Amino acid sequence: MSDLVAPGAFLSPLVIQDAVKRALDEDLGRAGDVTSSATLPEGIRAKAKLVARKAGTIAGLPCAARTFRTLAPNIGFEAKARDGDTVKANTTLALIEGPAIAILSGERVALNFLGHLSGIATMTAAYAAKIAHTKAKITDTRKTTPGLRALEKYAVRCGGGVNHRFGLDDAVLIKDNHIAVAGGVAKALDAARAAVGHLVKVEIEVDTLDQLKEVLANGKADVVLLDNMKPETLREAAALCKGRIVTEASGGVTLETVAAIAEAGVDVISSGALTHSAPSLDVALDIEIA
Amino acid sequence: MSDLVAPGAFLSPLVIQDAVKRALDEDLGRAGDVTSSATLPEGIRAKAKLVARKAGTIAGLPCAARTFRTLAPNIGFEAKARDGDTVKANTTLALIEGPAIAILSGERVALNFLGHLSGIATMTAAYAAKIAHTKAKITDTRKTTPGLRALEKYAVRCGGGVNHRFGLDDAVLIKDNHIAVAGGVAKALDAARAAVGHLVKVEIEVDTLDQLKEVLANGKADVVLLDNMKPETLREAAALCKGRIVTEASGGVTLETVAAIAEAGVDVISSGALTHSAPSLDVALDIEIA
Amino acid sequence: MSDLVAPGAFLSPLVIQDAVKRALDEDLGRAGDVTSSATLPEGIRAKAKLVARKAGTIAGLPCAARTFRTLAPNIGFEAKARDGDTVKANTTLALIEGPAIAILSGERVALNFLGHLSGIATMTAAYAAKIAHTKAKITDTRKTTPGLRALEKYAVRCGGGVNHRFGLDDAVLIKDNHIAVAGGVAKALDAARAAVGHLVKVEIEVDTLDQLKEVLANGKADVVLLDNMKPETLREAAALCKGRIVTEASGGVTLETVAAIAEAGVDVISSGALTHSAPSLDVALDIEIA
Amino acid sequence: MSDLVAPGAFLSPLVIQDAVKRALDEDLGRAGDVTSSATLPEGIRAKAKLVARKAGTIAGLPCAARTFRTLAPNIGFEAKARDGDTVKANTTLALIEGPAIAILSGERVALNFLGHLSGIATMTAAYAAKIAHTKAKITDTRKTTPGLRALEKYAVRCGGGVNHRFGLDDAVLIKDNHIAVAGGVAKALDAARAAVGHLVKVEIEVDTLDQLKEVLANGKADVVLLDNMKPETLREAAALCKGRIVTEASGGVTLETVAAIAEAGVDVISSGALTHSAPSLDVALDIEIA
Amino acid sequence: MSDLVAPGAFLSPLVIQDAVKRALDEDLGRAGDVTSSATLPEGIRAKAKLVARKAGTIAGLPCAARTFRTLAPNIGFEAKARDGDTVKANTTLALIEGPAIAILSGERVALNFLGHLSGIATMTAAYAAKIAHTKAKITDTRKTTPGLRALEKYAVRCGGGVNHRFGLDDAVLIKDNHIAVAGGVAKALDAARAAVGHLVKVEIEVDTLDQLKEVLANGKADVVLLDNMKPETLREAAALCKGRIVTEASGGVTLETVAAIAEAGVDVISSGALTHSAPSLDVALDIEIA
Amino acid sequence: MSDLVAPGAFLSPLVIQDAVKRALDEDLGRAGDVTSSATLPEGIRAKAKLVARKAGTIAGLPCAARTFRTLAPNIGFEAKARDGDTVKANTTLALIEGPAIAILSGERVALNFLGHLSGIATMTAAYAAKIAHTKAKITDTRKTTPGLRALEKYAVRCGGGVNHRFGLDDAVLIKDNHIAVAGGVAKALDAARAAVGHLVKVEIEVDTLDQLKEVLANGKADVVLLDNMKPETLREAAALCKGRIVTEASGGVTLETVAAIAEAGVDVISSGALTHSAPSLDVALDIEIA
Repeated sequence: MSDLVAPGAFLSPLVIQDAVKRALDEDLGRAGDVTSSATLPEGIRAKAKLVARKAGTIAGLPCAARTFRTLAPNIGFEAKARDGDTVKANTTLALIEGPAIAILSGERVALNFLGHLSGIATMTAAYAAKIAHTKAKITDTRKTTPGLRALEKYAVRCGGGVNHRFGLDDAVLIKDNHIAVAGGVAKALDAARAAVGHLVKVEIEVDTLDQLKEVLANGKADVVLLDNMKPETLREAAALCKGRIVTEASGGVTLETVAAIAEAGVDVISSGALTHSAPSLDVALDIEIA
Repeated sequence: MSDLVAPGAFLSPLVIQDAVKRALDEDLGRAGDVTSSATLPEGIRAKAKLVARKAGTIAGLPCAARTFRTLAPNIGFEAKARDGDTVKANTTLALIEGPAIAILSGERVALNFLGHLSGIATMTAAYAAKIAHTKAKITDTRKTTPGLRALEKYAVRCGGGVNHRFGLDDAVLIKDNHIAVAGGVAKALDAARAAVGHLVKVEIEVDTLDQLKEVLANGKADVVLLDNMKPETLREAAALCKGRIVTEASGGVTLETVAAIAEAGVDVISSGALTHSAPSLDVALDIEIA
Repeated sequence: MSDLVAPGAFLSPLVIQDAVKRALDEDLGRAGDVTSSATLPEGIRAKAKLVARKAGTIAGLPCAARTFRTLAPNIGFEAKARDGDTVKANTTLALIEGPAIAILSGERVALNFLGHLSGIATMTAAYAAKIAHTKAKITDTRKTTPGLRALEKYAVRCGGGVNHRFGLDDAVLIKDNHIAVAGGVAKALDAARAAVGHLVKVEIEVDTLDQLKEVLANGKADVVLLDNMKPETLREAAALCKGRIVTEASGGVTLETVAAIAEAGVDVISSGALTHSAPSLDVALDIEIA
Repeated sequence: MSDLVAPGAFLSPLVIQDAVKRALDEDLGRAGDVTSSATLPEGIRAKAKLVARKAGTIAGLPCAARTFRTLAPNIGFEAKARDGDTVKANTTLALIEGPAIAILSGERVALNFLGHLSGIATMTAAYAAKIAHTKAKITDTRKTTPGLRALEKYAVRCGGGVNHRFGLDDAVLIKDNHIAVAGGVAKALDAARAAVGHLVKVEIEVDTLDQLKEVLANGKADVVLLDNMKPETLREAAALCKGRIVTEASGGVTLETVAAIAEAGVDVISSGALTHSAPSLDVALDIEIA
Repeated sequence: MSDLVAPGAFLSPLVIQDAVKRALDEDLGRAGDVTSSATLPEGIRAKAKLVARKAGTIAGLPCAARTFRTLAPNIGFEAKARDGDTVKANTTLALIEGPAIAILSGERVALNFLGHLSGIATMTAAYAAKIAHTKAKITDTRKTTPGLRALEKYAVRCGGGVNHRFGLDDAVLIKDNHIAVAGGVAKALDAARAAVGHLVKVEIEVDTLDQLKEVLANGKADVVLLDNMKPETLREAAALCKGRIVTEASGGVTLETVAAIAEAGVDVISSGALTHSAPSLDVALDIEIA
Repeated sequence: MSDLVAPGAFLSPLVIQDAVKRALDEDLGRAGDVTSSATLPEGIRAKAKLVARKAGTIAGLPCAARTFRTLAPNIGFEAKARDGDTVKANTTLALIEGPAIAILSGERVALNFLGHLSGIATMTAAYAAKIAHTKAKITDTRKTTPGLRALEKYAVRCGGGVNHRFGLDDAVLIKDNHIAVAGGVAKALDAARAAVGHLVKVEIEVDTLDQLKEVLANGKADVVLLDNMKPETLREAAALCKGRIVTEASGGVTLETVAAIAEAGVDVISSGALTHSAPSLDVALDIEIA
């Protein structure tokens, strides 16, 4: 299945397997596809095409393949595109051949994965395109759909984005509340750095240039989150940070504003919308039953 | 927790429990909330408010409550709104009081459920409002986010919609491929009706009035799906069906077109966008640490 | 595996897979088949036959096949009968060939599925035979063995029965308590119909002809459950309902009474005994070790 | 919950918890109890009684309690009987008080456990009564319902039976095929005894007195299974074994034959019917909604 | 995979499968092997050798094979040794050939199983060697690593030990607290024997020869645990028990003391250290990427 | 339960819950604690003490508490020590009071967690003590016991160590094979840095000072792993890295060598033995049954 994953973007086969199993359980329920069972002659076979009805960036083909293979291990699934590809409307993504019952029973689950993940990749690609002339990268957040975080972050990578932390455990992100309770920027940074291992990065959120200066003075943060700053403040902040700390901008990021933010000189720009508000890409299955 | 579910809209506590467990596992990962553990004084408590930053229709409060209670069984969670309520911007949805670490560790998971499900409820409510002057109801599809179907369909009910079938197993929906392979509308309907029990409804998709007449002549369908018909055809179809069969319209349903479709006289109008493309509602947690 | 499922009776491969996994875990426990491991020469192979020792209707061959294939993916499993077949005593159901250890380790699990499900199919077929001269069908209930409902309802289909609802969620069944609390037959029906989607059927239980008339007057029920009525009342009820509503009879259904109930003119007759009290069919495995 | 388990018959709370969770998932499905949600006024409470409609021996009260407590943690569940009790028809087994929705939603799952397990306990008690004048005990087999073995074996204990091995891993049972392949009774026994630990018993099946003598001569078996022997042979076998090895009789065991088998002097008599063919005991829930 | 298991030592494929799945999930986490994905050219293949760097007794090859096959079903895995083999330092255990990404991603999980289980087998073999001149066997306890008991007990068998009970449920072990509460040795033994089936062994712990005599007088125990006795007492106890009951010695068992204990004439000697304190065997993977 | 976790060392309650559930399932098996059920009078209560028999550093009290609470939710568990404490021999760690059956049934599982995790904490503390006079920290590896990584890494923190990466996904570690295939140190670093997000650290393994210089010249690594270098080389390497990159030493780390390695000036020293070869700490439960 690895031939379907976007180049360089390994995705655990176990994550795919578990997500597909859960989705099929959810759709087949207790009695399976009663309609197809009742109306299809036994043993009848079919050919089908997965087609992107609209232009977009593709993510989710490994999930689609796994869906059909779960229902019919020997089904033919020939990919004509791969995750990360940006395609025109009406592009065939894959050819499928096998038992008609398996194709019809798996259709909706496969499309739900493809539509959802390609939607995220497509929105990510749109943001990435807006800032391609800068050094900035678009990144995601933890504002993901419950249960699908690893796949959604993979879709962001397919769309040309980079990933923020995957959970509360793999990086430190100190926010205003943490700072207040810890007794200030320096104390919070010291405490965090002392607590975590040498392979964990520490990021801290600042709202003002004064706070930023405290962060730089402390020297223990790897990344600073410049939250909701105006373009000119952002530019000033980026200049201060240059060569000393990685900068992330967040807040008010839209397709309209993202270029200006990137041009302020930050390294990454984070947007929750990539994963929580991307509309589905229209992908369909055209089937021809023998 | 049942006091948080929308009136009349029971939702299995097991579905909530499993979805929340999975989402917390995904976010807490292997080491938990390293930032809060490192920066919060031990045993410190906090108060917090769940606030809808934007106006919308709420869904997901039982998931939010379950999230915090999973991390701290005795945490205080006082709902100030309930699922199904339509609220103004900046409405407080719930008050929370308990260990600061539990509130900060659960914040993102709780908000991800609330934002995603309220987004669906809000979009559903917008469609419902457009057709409130007709007898038609807005309904969902199986185009849902993998792993979240039961919760998303609950959100549709919170928004004033009704639910289409939950999976391939709880109702029959005969589409063009089934008809073609079975040898026509009547044969497909006969086969389906013979196969399923007396508590399963049978729906069939038609593209033309001629097909519709075959369906009516056969008499075994409970619901007819009028797919992608123009308003005038739809009106004619609805008139033919009146008192004989339930009518569902699908295809080309948008906030702009839905009223005209409803006015054609159909019973339900289905839209995949409700569950696959609703943007998240902006819900936040305002926290005050003691 | 689909070649083993009864014609037209699709059964989710995931349901089979999970049930077989659980049963094998239960039987193999922590150390596996210690007896066979200790006494069989390594690598020894065997041939075996699944044989119905008594006459009956078969259900469960896909579970048996999956059992052996889980232990030895390449084992030979050649079906000589299929689910839904009614066979004489001493009929060979399948030939198996492969590692002796896998055949002996899987034997009891495979037989437990076959015996239990064929027992249900056989009892269902006995009821179905008694009413074959009428239009009535025998149907199951939710009185199933915990954890096996989907398989047991499949076995009922194999025996020529039809399925009642699969759970509390896929159809409405209004009983006396619901009616009492809702404030009468009409109010309960109105509330139920308003709450559920257009693909959910509504059934209501009545004890008297007066209640039945209320149901018919209301017009919102799809099915009426005529509970514990005497044959003459049942006949009267069936006549009232004819062409207007589907009728289900329940209560006091035995192999002795079922024909009279069917002759009263009802559409379906439900019996909990099919799934909660069917004795196992005697199926055995005859093995010949090379 | 331990106050509900039969005296001395500990049952792992995890086994109960998992079985109940699975059964509730199966029954509540994706949308929960749609009927009760639609018809019950919000927050309404109820009282209910679990009643054995027929006389029998009870097993399963801990499962029933867990069912309701899973749906409403603070529900009142007052046991009036306990597992292992033999009760008359119309005996109240437990009083329940709490939210009507929880009682109605859990009713069928609770009854399915109680009916199934009490059916097994009742049949076991019937066999036990027939042999109470002898030293013999009735015992179960591995012919259990897939997924319920631990609970069914507990029900056998509730009915006054004793348990055979729980799986392929906790005791050795050498059958004819093992003997044939191993090269005779002595070789099979030697191999088995060498392979297993000092806390594992070894049983061997014999069909003739000659084989039995080989077993006794070898001296390594703890138990001998006397399979399908006529009463007079059984008597002779039992006499040979007395004081040397535990004897188990199997084959042709019915309520009519069991006393004669026991009187032949064997120690235990095994019957698959206890767990694979016991009809359900009729247990009901009488509810009174406030 | 059975060709890799130690001769005669069947291990449930389901136990292996579940343990490997859990370990891979734990290591691959949410994004998989990011290093290899980023640095390996797509599709590149590799050859590798599993090598025991130190001398020892091998256990865990089926887990290693399953690890790589889970990541790449068609990977080549050719065993050059098998579980239970005692090998010299730098012995090649298996050759692997397949996608480099799968080999590198599975390396650590495969080695963790092999190192941990071979460590246990190696320590067991060391104890077994010390007592090879006696009839005594070394046995394990329930002092195992949480979640790995079945595999660790298998490793003990690979090292030439025998297994004690697998859990609280498959044999009786009466300890001092049980005796005290039950009212003495005889009462405890009577109660235990009455409660369990004929295929369950009963062991009782004694501290003194007087207690031992009570056990022998009662006659219902199968095994006696002689706890923390001095060699001379042990010898006396063993003499008393000879031919009447199996003897197990425990307490103060080390590589230095075990021979003397065995020479006292006991049947088995149990040591928790085998499973809770065996250091890992150094096993490595040498890889050659094409 | 959070009052038992080591200060600042949050551990996900879900990780504890799942590990304890699995361990109890493993020990209670199918029939639970048959010995205690048979010998303890019903309802009898007990008091118990968890006692460290040997001196050491404690880890695992939250697991112990969860074990007993799973079996008896209202059991009294009063901690007298907390994770991270270093205690003398015979120190009481916790007092327990509740049903004797729950205490005896949970004893072994609770002790297995405490013994295993405290063994790791104790070994870690021994290493930490040896290097306390330097700035170096002792750290773990991915050489952990399958299924217990998160808990074992928590135990390392309890012992005063810091954590290396938790899996293949949360940090980059480029080894010799990656370098070889990627075409050199710089290419591998460039590829890795381009592939991962801004919150992921990149570490690279070097064997020589020349390689180290390449790493420093490239400038993209956060951490360098100095593998198997002699003390003098290590010292030279540390001097080169000072202020530019974090240094980790690995290979040949023992209690005898660790101080010299630390004195060479490295930042962290990693040892697989902490988690794969730490002997269990002797912790016992002293029980007094009322």
